[in-house]
Amino acid sequence: MSNSLGEKFRITSFGESHGKCVGVVIDGCPSGLSLSEDDVQSELNRRRPGQSQITTKRQEEDQVEILSGIFKGYTTGAPICMLVWNKDVDSSKYELFRNVPRPGHADFTARQKYGGFNDYRGGGRFSGRITASFVMAGAVARKLLRDVLKVDITAYTIEIGGIKAKKIEDVKVIKKTVEKTPVRTADLEVAEKMIDLIIQTEKEGDSVGGIVECVATNVPIGLGEPVFSSLESDISKAIFSIPAVKGIEFGTGFGVSELKGSENNDAFIIEDGKILTKTNNSGGILGGISSGMPIIFRVAIKPTPSIRNKQDSVNILEIKETTIQIEGRHDPCLVPRAVPVIESMTAVVLVDHAIKYGLIPQIIKGDI
Amino acid sequence: MSNSLGEKFRITSFGESHGKCVGVVIDGCPSGLSLSEDDVQSELNRRRPGQSQITTKRQEEDQVEILSGIFKGYTTGAPICMLVWNKDVDSSKYELFRNVPRPGHADFTARQKYGGFNDYRGGGRFSGRITASFVMAGAVARKLLRDVLKVDITAYTIEIGGIKAKKIEDVKVIKKTVEKTPVRTADLEVAEKMIDLIIQTEKEGDSVGGIVECVATNVPIGLGEPVFSSLESDISKAIFSIPAVKGIEFGTGFGVSELKGSENNDAFIIEDGKILTKTNNSGGILGGISSGMPIIFRVAIKPTPSIRNKQDSVNILEIKETTIQIEGRHDPCLVPRAVPVIESMTAVVLVDHAIKYGLIPQIIKGDI
Amino acid sequence: MSNSLGEKFRITSFGESHGKCVGVVIDGCPSGLSLSEDDVQSELNRRRPGQSQITTKRQEEDQVEILSGIFKGYTTGAPICMLVWNKDVDSSKYELFRNVPRPGHADFTARQKYGGFNDYRGGGRFSGRITASFVMAGAVARKLLRDVLKVDITAYTIEIGGIKAKKIEDVKVIKKTVEKTPVRTADLEVAEKMIDLIIQTEKEGDSVGGIVECVATNVPIGLGEPVFSSLESDISKAIFSIPAVKGIEFGTGFGVSELKGSENNDAFIIEDGKILTKTNNSGGILGGISSGMPIIFRVAIKPTPSIRNKQDSVNILEIKETTIQIEGRHDPCLVPRAVPVIESMTAVVLVDHAIKYGLIPQIIKGDI
Amino acid sequence: MSNSLGEKFRITSFGESHGKCVGVVIDGCPSGLSLSEDDVQSELNRRRPGQSQITTKRQEEDQVEILSGIFKGYTTGAPICMLVWNKDVDSSKYELFRNVPRPGHADFTARQKYGGFNDYRGGGRFSGRITASFVMAGAVARKLLRDVLKVDITAYTIEIGGIKAKKIEDVKVIKKTVEKTPVRTADLEVAEKMIDLIIQTEKEGDSVGGIVECVATNVPIGLGEPVFSSLESDISKAIFSIPAVKGIEFGTGFGVSELKGSENNDAFIIEDGKILTKTNNSGGILGGISSGMPIIFRVAIKPTPSIRNKQDSVNILEIKETTIQIEGRHDPCLVPRAVPVIESMTAVVLVDHAIKYGLIPQIIKGDI
Repeated sequence: MSNSLGEKFRITSFGESHGKCVGVVIDGCPSGLSLSEDDVQSELNRRRPGQSQITTKRQEEDQVEILSGIFKGYTTGAPICMLVWNKDVDSSKYELFRNVPRPGHADFTARQKYGGFNDYRGGGRFSGRITASFVMAGAVARKLLRDVLKVDITAYTIEIGGIKAKKIEDVKVIKKTVEKTPVRTADLEVAEKMIDLIIQTEKEGDSVGGIVECVATNVPIGLGEPVFSSLESDISKAIFSIPAVKGIEFGTGFGVSELKGSENNDAFIIEDGKILTKTNNSGGILGGISSGMPIIFRVAIKPTPSIRNKQDSVNILEIKETTIQIEGRHDPCLVPRAVPVIESMTAVVLVDHAIKYGLIPQIIKGDI
Repeated sequence: MSNSLGEKFRITSFGESHGKCVGVVIDGCPSGLSLSEDDVQSELNRRRPGQSQITTKRQEEDQVEILSGIFKGYTTGAPICMLVWNKDVDSSKYELFRNVPRPGHADFTARQKYGGFNDYRGGGRFSGRITASFVMAGAVARKLLRDVLKVDITAYTIEIGGIKAKKIEDVKVIKKTVEKTPVRTADLEVAEKMIDLIIQTEKEGDSVGGIVECVATNVPIGLGEPVFSSLESDISKAIFSIPAVKGIEFGTGFGVSELKGSENNDAFIIEDGKILTKTNNSGGILGGISSGMPIIFRVAIKPTPSIRNKQDSVNILEIKETTIQIEGRHDPCLVPRAVPVIESMTAVVLVDHAIKYGLIPQIIKGDI
Repeated sequence: MSNSLGEKFRITSFGESHGKCVGVVIDGCPSGLSLSEDDVQSELNRRRPGQSQITTKRQEEDQVEILSGIFKGYTTGAPICMLVWNKDVDSSKYELFRNVPRPGHADFTARQKYGGFNDYRGGGRFSGRITASFVMAGAVARKLLRDVLKVDITAYTIEIGGIKAKKIEDVKVIKKTVEKTPVRTADLEVAEKMIDLIIQTEKEGDSVGGIVECVATNVPIGLGEPVFSSLESDISKAIFSIPAVKGIEFGTGFGVSELKGSENNDAFIIEDGKILTKTNNSGGILGGISSGMPIIFRVAIKPTPSIRNKQDSVNILEIKETTIQIEGRHDPCLVPRAVPVIESMTAVVLVDHAIKYGLIPQIIKGDI
Repeated sequence: MSNSLGEKFRITSFGESHGKCVGVVIDGCPSGLSLSEDDVQSELNRRRPGQSQITTKRQEEDQVEILSGIFKGYTTGAPICMLVWNKDVDSSKYELFRNVPRPGHADFTARQKYGGFNDYRGGGRFSGRITASFVMAGAVARKLLRDVLKVDITAYTIEIGGIKAKKIEDVKVIKKTVEKTPVRTADLEVAEKMIDLIIQTEKEGDSVGGIVECVATNVPIGLGEPVFSSLESDISKAIFSIPAVKGIEFGTGFGVSELKGSENNDAFIIEDGKILTKTNNSGGILGGISSGMPIIFRVAIKPTPSIRNKQDSVNILEIKETTIQIEGRHDPCLVPRAVPVIESMTAVVLVDHAIKYGLIPQIIKGDI
């Protein structure tokens, strides 16, 4: 069903923006993984609103509560239900958008699909807020990947509003830098320009989009189940579940149109007795299966649809054109907060495949 | 499982490039759809090798045989199994690639994943040939969409080897033009240049990639099941199952980084009493749900990895660097033959969602 | 995954006996169904412990809290998360059973399967208490079936400890009677004997099992998706998820061994212009598909494994035989409380099939 | 979807009784399993019609053809498609039953469900013939279970037409005896009586039903995924997919109603340093998880609905009562031929769970 993802590590998301809570159930987490609320909270904090001058001023503490599946500090093999309670909620302004849909939002399509019964407050089920459930699930997935397989996942901003970061190849350098700036780019020089642009755009009542790159290192050879569960298939499905994502490309991506086969093919080489490829145009995936090279992909994030400027819309009941103005506290740029969400969904997919391929045991350790 | 796709209209692909056949089982097709082998054959013919001077010289007649699920010219509601028998097969050259993997191919990863038991002849299960099963399934999906909902799906080449076709907005014009040239672009002027480039590249023992655009018109409002089965999620998963695909973007796609929210948001308007959007930067999908506007996306196709030029590789058994040279009859550019495959997978996803959303009845007609 | 059931109306159960709560997420409930906590509570009350002299003395108020998916009194189409918080919990006695498993319980197998990490308090995830999540989901399923299709589901005790109720054919009579006695049988004469047996057995430190029959009336023709989702297949899968169930039979069931084909076949007849069968040995299911006759099946419930009498067991750590004595407040007979659980799981399966077959629309009503 | 079963070892059945073929696709079989057509044929031969004086006189050689997934005698990890071509087909008599449904058959319900488009020849998709696809899949599953885990599965008739075989506890004795008599019972004395009854009933134009018991030995502890994929849940779902099955019970089954908890609980004991249970009333499953004891269950098979005697039915088009007489060659008792089918479906479920639980590796051996 549509609110679940994964086969062996299966997450089910629930909750709405202005309802009681946003939560997730994880089914299929092996037993014996050491897990505390702190492990989850540290990831949630990276997604939380109000964390810097360029994110929304809404204050949500987003404190995780684990309801099931953990006993004496370890996963039990039973479903893990976790949630954050909604607190800083102001639904007063949304009554308006019920009949006058906000451009770029799901107001119109959700209303049609659910016959007007959808919870429209704060975007309801279509709010970016539901990605809190992705991050909670991702925190568990990342811990499994790290503890058992040493897989590391890092995402970072490479472009905002047309401003491009310079290419940095070394993931270790990226990891050290990326959390030092609120735009989460590894190019600290360009970071200031991005911040300025965001602040300026916000003042103009507008918003900007951008591009995030994500790298997973130390991924074992063999993840991915062709044909329909190729690694690209499953990663892309998960990433497009994140609101505002409009594109994904692996390795060279859309650049392949400009390359000859002789340029795009990654030659096999031997380094320290291991088979690698000289280049990584494939993004670490060959035939839908991880090759042992870093998995690398890029994600396009559209500008926040909620802008203060007046916009053209229609009144659905009266079938009449009108205008709409959106008040409220919205991120002028979704890109920085999308970074931990992209990492999380990547982790969820990789751990699912790692379990399917038998690389993560059903019992993490047997010391009891 | 990985060789099945879809929930309500579920396809299961089987077969290998140089095995006995390539086939598909469709489970969930409503009963009462008029369906003949000709309906399927006409789509297969568009994918078939040897159809023009710029495709592989291999001759495969790819004659479909329907094994089950059809009775007296109508679908019965039982699983439809269809296949094409493999004929023009020459496996002699593939023994070589078992231990010396071809760059850009799945030889290396498949061998690792399946412990060397994979059928490596002609790429086996990883060959582009398995897309014949996608096209057979797609033919049924398209017929359902067309007969019941008047949905139309058209894909066409917009870029090959860096040569860009000019933007044509009118899908009717595109449909009339696209099959007139073997490169399947709607810009007939640029078509000649693309053909020249492909022929020239082929002579040089090399290959080129490109970009295909796909448009689905008349799609009803409401298809797509957020969050994890958003229309973008499910289309992208299906499209990345096609070998050689490395990127997908919907609507403005990666271009969103250069747009302000005020530019990227599609204003709602009223035309002939219907709610539309002035622009279609969203690609016909809002909140993961079809908006009634045309669904539009682009797909990056890498240059054919099989090239005649000598390439660097390794001998896996000896853990030693070596070179490899690929003989044989390969498409110098996969883009034109990818066009019907992309349409097919799009149809498979849309019909699955249309059934889920209740727009296609379980019995197409009750006239018996 | 194992904690989810259903394809279109999909339930995901979570929670443990002595953890924070027991809950369920429903994914796929159509929008526009009027639903309140009272609708769910009334079903939960029938399952609740402490409701009569023959059930456990534990007092759990089992107050449902709906966390998501309802807005202004209607389902929204988003996942519905509901739970009951655990209150009257005494885990002190369970430390003992960790290493000395209780006969007839999952202590031994769960410990082996989860490497000892399972929450063993009160049986943890294997407690009958998790059926509270079944009943919550069932309450929604029943409301959908009743409101849209007028389907009615009634279960009732037909045997306890070898004491058989007399056969009552008229479901209306059964419905009127069954809640009048704590053993939930329609034969009020035999009810007293059953109650006496239960009380007597309880005094002896022992327990009894029994058989429940379940009838669903007004089920439309055509539910059930052969071959692997036949109605018998999916009902049996759901029913065997209820702890203590050890057998299920449809219609004549195991009695078929004693009948000739000419006796067991249900002759078709016409009544009031409708096609019915003279008898209903098939239990309302032919070829895995509902025939329009009442669906009827029987379920065997084993005697409560928790008994006060001393039992033989082993110490797992010391690999040594020993004895065990179980204190605490346990139902001497699970049968009466199993009745609403069986109804609930039947409803969950039938509503899933009804949605699949297109009989329940995606929007219940469009009056907004 | 309804024609697929299993999560990790997933089978998809296709084909009709009088269509071109009956087949199956297995997705998820590990690579490296030695497999030939002979391995499958030997199981098919046990299900084949015409094998003795008490089965149908139809002669179908049921020769398996493997279409994909095997290379050089080993499974490749790709989908395995196998089929038997239909040969001895006489469809002339079935036109009659289209409008006058045979009692006890799916003629009526299938016609309603599929709007009359179903292939009614020979029962079409509802024929017992489709169990040939179950047996083909089962042959692969059994080989995996046997080769990797030494699991052994044996089914045998324990009752036909009310005639009960005497209880034999030793599975080794059963295995040696069961194929010595066409009724496949281990009690050779009673076998003659069963055969006489079948022959006599056949002469009377009637049919008989019976009960089959199935035992799986050497099943590792830990198979089964509570709650909804408990071993009972998944076995029962698979078994009820077999036409004519009307009941299933595990261990003591319906007998639990007559036992006290103190009698029904299986005491844990230690034998040769291993933890076993003194009795096996649970049928080898505790809390939905295999306990290491033999898994044991019984299945009720109804009398063949096709009988020569005249029966009451209705004309669907004219909505009028009438009678029907079935000619043709039908088994007077389905029980003996159900035996290998029950074993097969049990194997399919157990291997699926064994893979899920990590007991069967993704590559059976790495000797290449």
